[in-house]
Amino acid sequence: MFSSNAFLLWGFLSCCWGLRLDEELARTRQPSKWGSLWPLPQRVATFDVSFKLAAASFEISDGEGSSAGPSCGLLQDAYRRYDKYIFGGAKAKRPRARDKRTDFPVLTGLRVLITDPEPECDRYPSVTSDESYELLVERATAILKAPKVWGALRGLETFSQLVYEDDFGTKLANWTQISDYPRFAHRGLLLDTSRHFLPVKVILDNLETMAMNKFNVFHWHIVDDQSFPYESRTFPDLSRKGAYHPYTHVYTPSDVKSVIEFARLRGIRVIPEFDTPGHTQSWGKGQAGLLTPCFAGPRPSGSFGPINPIINSTYDFMRRLFREVAAVFPDDYVHLGGDEVDFTCWKSNPEIQTFMEQQGFGKNYSQLESFYIQRLLDIVSSTEKASIVWQEVFDNHVKLKRDAVVHVWMGGADCGEEMRNVTAAGLAAILSAPWYLDYISYGQDWLKYYKVEPLSFNGTAEQKKLVIGGEACLWGEYVDATNLTPRLWPRASAVAERLWSAENVTDVVDAYDRLSSHRCRMLERGIPAEPLFSGYCPREFQRIGER
Amino acid sequence: MFSSNAFLLWGFLSCCWGLRLDEELARTRQPSKWGSLWPLPQRVATFDVSFKLAAASFEISDGEGSSAGPSCGLLQDAYRRYDKYIFGGAKAKRPRARDKRTDFPVLTGLRVLITDPEPECDRYPSVTSDESYELLVERATAILKAPKVWGALRGLETFSQLVYEDDFGTKLANWTQISDYPRFAHRGLLLDTSRHFLPVKVILDNLETMAMNKFNVFHWHIVDDQSFPYESRTFPDLSRKGAYHPYTHVYTPSDVKSVIEFARLRGIRVIPEFDTPGHTQSWGKGQAGLLTPCFAGPRPSGSFGPINPIINSTYDFMRRLFREVAAVFPDDYVHLGGDEVDFTCWKSNPEIQTFMEQQGFGKNYSQLESFYIQRLLDIVSSTEKASIVWQEVFDNHVKLKRDAVVHVWMGGADCGEEMRNVTAAGLAAILSAPWYLDYISYGQDWLKYYKVEPLSFNGTAEQKKLVIGGEACLWGEYVDATNLTPRLWPRASAVAERLWSAENVTDVVDAYDRLSSHRCRMLERGIPAEPLFSGYCPREFQRIGER
Repeated sequence: MFSSNAFLLWGFLSCCWGLRLDEELARTRQPSKWGSLWPLPQRVATFDVSFKLAAASFEISDGEGSSAGPSCGLLQDAYRRYDKYIFGGAKAKRPRARDKRTDFPVLTGLRVLITDPEPECDRYPSVTSDESYELLVERATAILKAPKVWGALRGLETFSQLVYEDDFGTKLANWTQISDYPRFAHRGLLLDTSRHFLPVKVILDNLETMAMNKFNVFHWHIVDDQSFPYESRTFPDLSRKGAYHPYTHVYTPSDVKSVIEFARLRGIRVIPEFDTPGHTQSWGKGQAGLLTPCFAGPRPSGSFGPINPIINSTYDFMRRLFREVAAVFPDDYVHLGGDEVDFTCWKSNPEIQTFMEQQGFGKNYSQLESFYIQRLLDIVSSTEKASIVWQEVFDNHVKLKRDAVVHVWMGGADCGEEMRNVTAAGLAAILSAPWYLDYISYGQDWLKYYKVEPLSFNGTAEQKKLVIGGEACLWGEYVDATNLTPRLWPRASAVAERLWSAENVTDVVDAYDRLSSHRCRMLERGIPAEPLFSGYCPREFQRIGER
Repeated sequence: MFSSNAFLLWGFLSCCWGLRLDEELARTRQPSKWGSLWPLPQRVATFDVSFKLAAASFEISDGEGSSAGPSCGLLQDAYRRYDKYIFGGAKAKRPRARDKRTDFPVLTGLRVLITDPEPECDRYPSVTSDESYELLVERATAILKAPKVWGALRGLETFSQLVYEDDFGTKLANWTQISDYPRFAHRGLLLDTSRHFLPVKVILDNLETMAMNKFNVFHWHIVDDQSFPYESRTFPDLSRKGAYHPYTHVYTPSDVKSVIEFARLRGIRVIPEFDTPGHTQSWGKGQAGLLTPCFAGPRPSGSFGPINPIINSTYDFMRRLFREVAAVFPDDYVHLGGDEVDFTCWKSNPEIQTFMEQQGFGKNYSQLESFYIQRLLDIVSSTEKASIVWQEVFDNHVKLKRDAVVHVWMGGADCGEEMRNVTAAGLAAILSAPWYLDYISYGQDWLKYYKVEPLSFNGTAEQKKLVIGGEACLWGEYVDATNLTPRLWPRASAVAERLWSAENVTDVVDAYDRLSSHRCRMLERGIPAEPLFSGYCPREFQRIGER
């Protein structure tokens, strides 16, 4: 919760530390009429009538006629989690308009009703998963209706955000009708476990926080130049020699499984990225012959460049690796990277030069890159997975399959032309360019992320439909277990609302208020989300992991 | 510890994420010959001869003839603390050049010898405290000699930094001779507990980390516009009404005492700042009549400006408050603030206007500010304290006492002229302008802080002597318990070395290597210091507070 005098002082402060402050944020001192809802649901009607909740007797349970029964572990697990958040953790909320009667009606429970005959309880979420739900807090029993469990998970989070505490510690929820669904299907967060190794605990904490923000894709940039922490059963030397440490700084098959299941239980997909042909220095340590030997004049220099695209062993290796990846990661998509290929080493290597001539590529190394990617795409297709690639692959005119997705990351906010081009080519696009959260600066940069409109580029309605969503990216050069979580939250929350809520949810004054409350709620749930600005939470963060 | 291949990849990465990297850092892959010493002592001689340390039998104890005996709790407490750091926490260190003999000589203990007849065991540190020491690791027993306990504390930290672990887990220290003393007497860190309340635990953690970095002044910016968490015995309403919360977000007298004693045991001074006449909005809530009523035309607007300088009750209040402050805080100095006074409200108030005319100040409100500060300085002098003021007080030509200190904060790196002017006036100066650590940016900004030379301004040798030191400032608008510690360390460590080590310690390649190791050591001691760049520590941070 944010102290109201913080707003009073806003103008004052803007003079004080040379901060360029958004004037519009200074005008209000009113709490949002939407309470602490974040991201804001598509349709909310709320009334100043309050129900009391009793911690001891309130019960979240399956509604009558639900297609998901007690065997649906995903829901049972979620009921337990949200009970704890509502009654155990999240206590102090902003006192909202209160009914003056001494005797509020009692809300005895929440019934969760899965309406579709197939609840998808034991499935993995996908880009077509139905996350819609309806939430009614009108009678003694609140109702949460959703076609699938995925919508129920989103609705449970929303319900938990409706509960607040008055000054006397009574838990209350107002009369509310909500009908909700996401604006974009792909709402992702990229974490990078190569520049710094992230302990599994850190990944799980952030998956938990993603669920609080209705993110649904964990883009796991699992390996890169610096280290190869993915422990491959097929090629164990990759991590044994390529990780920072062969067993303290790796993800074992069991670690990966835990991450995937933890994510699934929260309706979050895990899309691994195995970025090639660049960004692969660490791969070379455990797989001799995989990288291109660089030359200094006529002799090998001893250093290595990107994946060697001209030898068959490369493709044999990729076939076996991606067969494993396809089996380990259940998602329909694999991210193949393809960004930032440095041609210096390829250019230095005489065998590559010869190959270029044979293929008629001339001096155009983009063609060599495309040659490689093309074959890699075919390999991945044969594993029944669709591919996501960074935008250079598209820019270099690689022939992509119709189900490929292009990930736009360059140009910051000025990426409209790329978005237009990708979608004009009939390809699906994911937007990340304006959401590189590793770039930090002084002040309230969440506003910048919040103000992005993903569909603002010039294009037809058909093209806009091809934008399946976006991802906030937190590259790992400067973050590890010490600082990742507070640096990410609530900055990523701004992206979360942009990707979930309706296009017209753009009131930054209202957003500031809701987000301040939402960040205090994250604190109460044990997540060290950093402050937006001066102020306080009723319960300050004490230490990580106490929840 | 930093993986050596991180350097290899440096050049590679600089292309990748558009990062402007310091080329000089890319040239080396050699570990520093100074190991992980930070800040670097004035004189170090070290040889490739190693001694073994046995955790069970190694003993830190008073040396024969030491003027400090077993009753010196400060030293006993430090022995225990460093024993734990050497054998309990800080284990894995970079394997250094090792003697190939299977049998290293054993280092059985460290004798700590206080040579001055008055060890100052029960005193508070001051700006004239002697922090020098000599450390000799040459024979079976290492010797730490210091005139006062303050030097012994610094030497214990240095000794703990000499101990490393080989691949087999053996604790080793190399033959070493160190003679050390600080370049500047005032090496401070400013924390702000008004924009956000910081739990006492957070303050103590950072005092502990300050000691690891040989900082010796905690500048406690304890109150400001946003909140007044200092619980005054004389004016309890100040915090009761001016804090974010009357008892969860305040520092009780007992809290303040704990902080001061915790700091004293680490040779750290606590200088409180009670900033007036501006930055006092929160004061007005608990002390009616203290602030200037602002006017909208002919009528009071209902809002308030700076301290009201034209009524006697103001000075009565200040006399009583600063009498309490003088009693509570043992340091010889009090920081009086005096920065950023906004004249708008004073200008609007008709009584102030009349007063200005009576005093012959014309329209020069700086004169009114000076009038106030002058009287405040006299009040503080009467409590036997010397004053520190922000630079505006000097700039506005307030007559300062000879023992006053001017704190230079404006202009960033371009503050040379102010430094020249202050010292030309014969006044002592503290430098903070280039060290505002609340201003964050992408990349390795520690380099910028590190490269500052505090005496680079034009001035005589006499003037340079008046620069008693500097402070790293972490203003609180964007930091609280969630993110303060990783945002501060190791960035503040760069300032620490600049203020302690010799002027010619400017090799950033060497500094990068030592600082990387130093930050891993901070992790091992339970401090979530953030990474400088891609890489890893043998033991990654797990959670806050586990030590």
